[in-house]
Amino acid sequence: MPTIELQISLVLLFALAGYLLSSRINQSAVVGIIVVGIIIGPSLLSIVEYSDAIKMLAHLGAIMLLFAIGLEFKIKDIYQIKYIFIALIGIILPWIAGYFLGDLFGYGFKESMFIGVSLTATSIAITASVLKEMKKLNTPAAKAIIGAAVIDDVLGLLALSIAIQSAKGDNIAIAEILTIAAKSTVFLIAGILAAPYIKKLFIKLDEKGVAKEFPDFLFIMSIMFCFLYASVAEIIGLSAIVGAFLSGAVLEGIKFKNSKDLKEGAEYLHIIFGAIFFISLGILVNLKELTFNILPFFVILLFAAILTKVIGCGIASRLASYSKNESLVIGFGMSPRGEVAMIIALIGLTSNIINQDLYVSIVLMSLITTIITPIVIRNLKW
Amino acid sequence: MPTIELQISLVLLFALAGYLLSSRINQSAVVGIIVVGIIIGPSLLSIVEYSDAIKMLAHLGAIMLLFAIGLEFKIKDIYQIKYIFIALIGIILPWIAGYFLGDLFGYGFKESMFIGVSLTATSIAITASVLKEMKKLNTPAAKAIIGAAVIDDVLGLLALSIAIQSAKGDNIAIAEILTIAAKSTVFLIAGILAAPYIKKLFIKLDEKGVAKEFPDFLFIMSIMFCFLYASVAEIIGLSAIVGAFLSGAVLEGIKFKNSKDLKEGAEYLHIIFGAIFFISLGILVNLKELTFNILPFFVILLFAAILTKVIGCGIASRLASYSKNESLVIGFGMSPRGEVAMIIALIGLTSNIINQDLYVSIVLMSLITTIITPIVIRNLKW
Repeated sequence: MPTIELQISLVLLFALAGYLLSSRINQSAVVGIIVVGIIIGPSLLSIVEYSDAIKMLAHLGAIMLLFAIGLEFKIKDIYQIKYIFIALIGIILPWIAGYFLGDLFGYGFKESMFIGVSLTATSIAITASVLKEMKKLNTPAAKAIIGAAVIDDVLGLLALSIAIQSAKGDNIAIAEILTIAAKSTVFLIAGILAAPYIKKLFIKLDEKGVAKEFPDFLFIMSIMFCFLYASVAEIIGLSAIVGAFLSGAVLEGIKFKNSKDLKEGAEYLHIIFGAIFFISLGILVNLKELTFNILPFFVILLFAAILTKVIGCGIASRLASYSKNESLVIGFGMSPRGEVAMIIALIGLTSNIINQDLYVSIVLMSLITTIITPIVIRNLKW
Repeated sequence: MPTIELQISLVLLFALAGYLLSSRINQSAVVGIIVVGIIIGPSLLSIVEYSDAIKMLAHLGAIMLLFAIGLEFKIKDIYQIKYIFIALIGIILPWIAGYFLGDLFGYGFKESMFIGVSLTATSIAITASVLKEMKKLNTPAAKAIIGAAVIDDVLGLLALSIAIQSAKGDNIAIAEILTIAAKSTVFLIAGILAAPYIKKLFIKLDEKGVAKEFPDFLFIMSIMFCFLYASVAEIIGLSAIVGAFLSGAVLEGIKFKNSKDLKEGAEYLHIIFGAIFFISLGILVNLKELTFNILPFFVILLFAAILTKVIGCGIASRLASYSKNESLVIGFGMSPRGEVAMIIALIGLTSNIINQDLYVSIVLMSLITTIITPIVIRNLKW
């Protein structure tokens, strides 16, 4: 195993190659970096190992990415009934489609339930990163995507726990589902309610005492705060990155007089660790596992994954009176499954709900939805 | 084991407590953070475990710290004959004193040689960080400290390999020592010679192509470059942080038109990870291990550690025509053993050269020299 310094410098070197590729094919940086990740990973060259260290840094990257994106979002912009509506349709349609697809291919009840759940996932990281690169985070469609994706994370968590319970043969414990729903809702609402006080605390600290003496103090405090929210989210069962996003949104718009600039700092952290995160998405999958006999299922799964989100979220958006093109952007923007479905697939595999073939299909479906989205969003006129 | 998010948020929270303490006792941030590290570590409360993840992040912190400091140093400023002279005296005197001290307390040849070597170490990270906080990195004394500390790292490496060879009972292989010396010298000189070309490459890239399209590109490239130098330094046997420092010095003064600012970015990275590094120095030691029977040896070792550097480097500085106060600053500035002597002690313990008592004494000596230095430097008039 090479030293951690060498691993990091290699991964960053390949991320640079990803930028070069993106520039050459005129796509988002995300696409090029993931593709280079696939090339250097087990699918092709097997040069870089997915070590624990890289895994951890990639995880930090996802957290810093969502924190930086949160910093560009007003709390009020995120919580709107129409986003809940978009998220809900974007969960139900893929779930049903996934279930029937599993049934069609002869999988049993628990596998089919699980295929459905894997299709419900939405990775905020990918779309948000592309929108940030395109400087479109402040458009109505972008706000809808991010808002709906956060709610999607909560709903997806509920769906996952239902699928796992029913796979165990347990009766679906309504009490447990309600507990998870309640905990998530309390966390999100508490986050919103606490926001003005936390913001005020930061601004007050900036004017006096230790923060005035040490310009680093409030920057460390904000990153501490980000990881604290991420931990709480994870303890509840939500993605850590949803917590990170929320903490960013809480601190949105803060300008310090004496302290280091928060947004700028988060930006630099996310540049480095975000690159590690994106490249690791490519390293995580092994295209060689896509054997001929799972190909038909995989292809249909992939179409279902994209179509159900595009149609589901798209129609919901139209009903919420977004324009046709905005609705398309929202639909495609909700499509990338990214690391979320990969993690769900891993849970399914390790708890013996799904077999290796299903696992591979879901992971590759995640990857490809993740690569397609930035390409589509960048080329749509909106 | 708590999640990595919770570990990071806890460590950062305690780092903030360190800032508060520093502000209260009117000392450098480094002092307060290390003291809080001692309090939360095994010495007292045992709240935070020194997990592999924290260890890695602390290591990244040391690298980012030295990279950021390197960025404020012109290559020409580092390599001067007088710094070699200061480093040399600052190695020879502690080594001899350590050897005789061991001999005096009845330790054998190999232990005594090793005690000597542990006293030769200098941790650049501590002093440089304090000087940066005091905005004195550009003073002649600061330049002398940093320049001599880099050379000290090379000489210390040679001393360590001599001590290990003689402990094995091998004849000291002059050829091997010369190889290490040659490799280190080649690395440092190649670094200097390559500097203008590397700098030119960065500036050229900034004006066109992929770097112009993606403002993140050159920032990632510079961090990649930092870790690459750090790896090479480590492969040769030098500290990774010496490589990081050198890479920073190579890129000193670069201003981009289109890309993210390198110095600013390195600063933000070092703020977060540096805090983790400093707090981990405190967590690493266990004051409880300081039993009554090693106390006399420990106290004398500590005095020897400080006096030999202050007198050795101080006199050498006077001879190199620094003022009296500057010479004192240089002497104390070369005193902190920081993580360097801790690592040497660990090598000695794991290769059965020294016993547990000696190990504990050396680690605590490192810690205390590390805390005393910032206090003295801050309170001297210079």
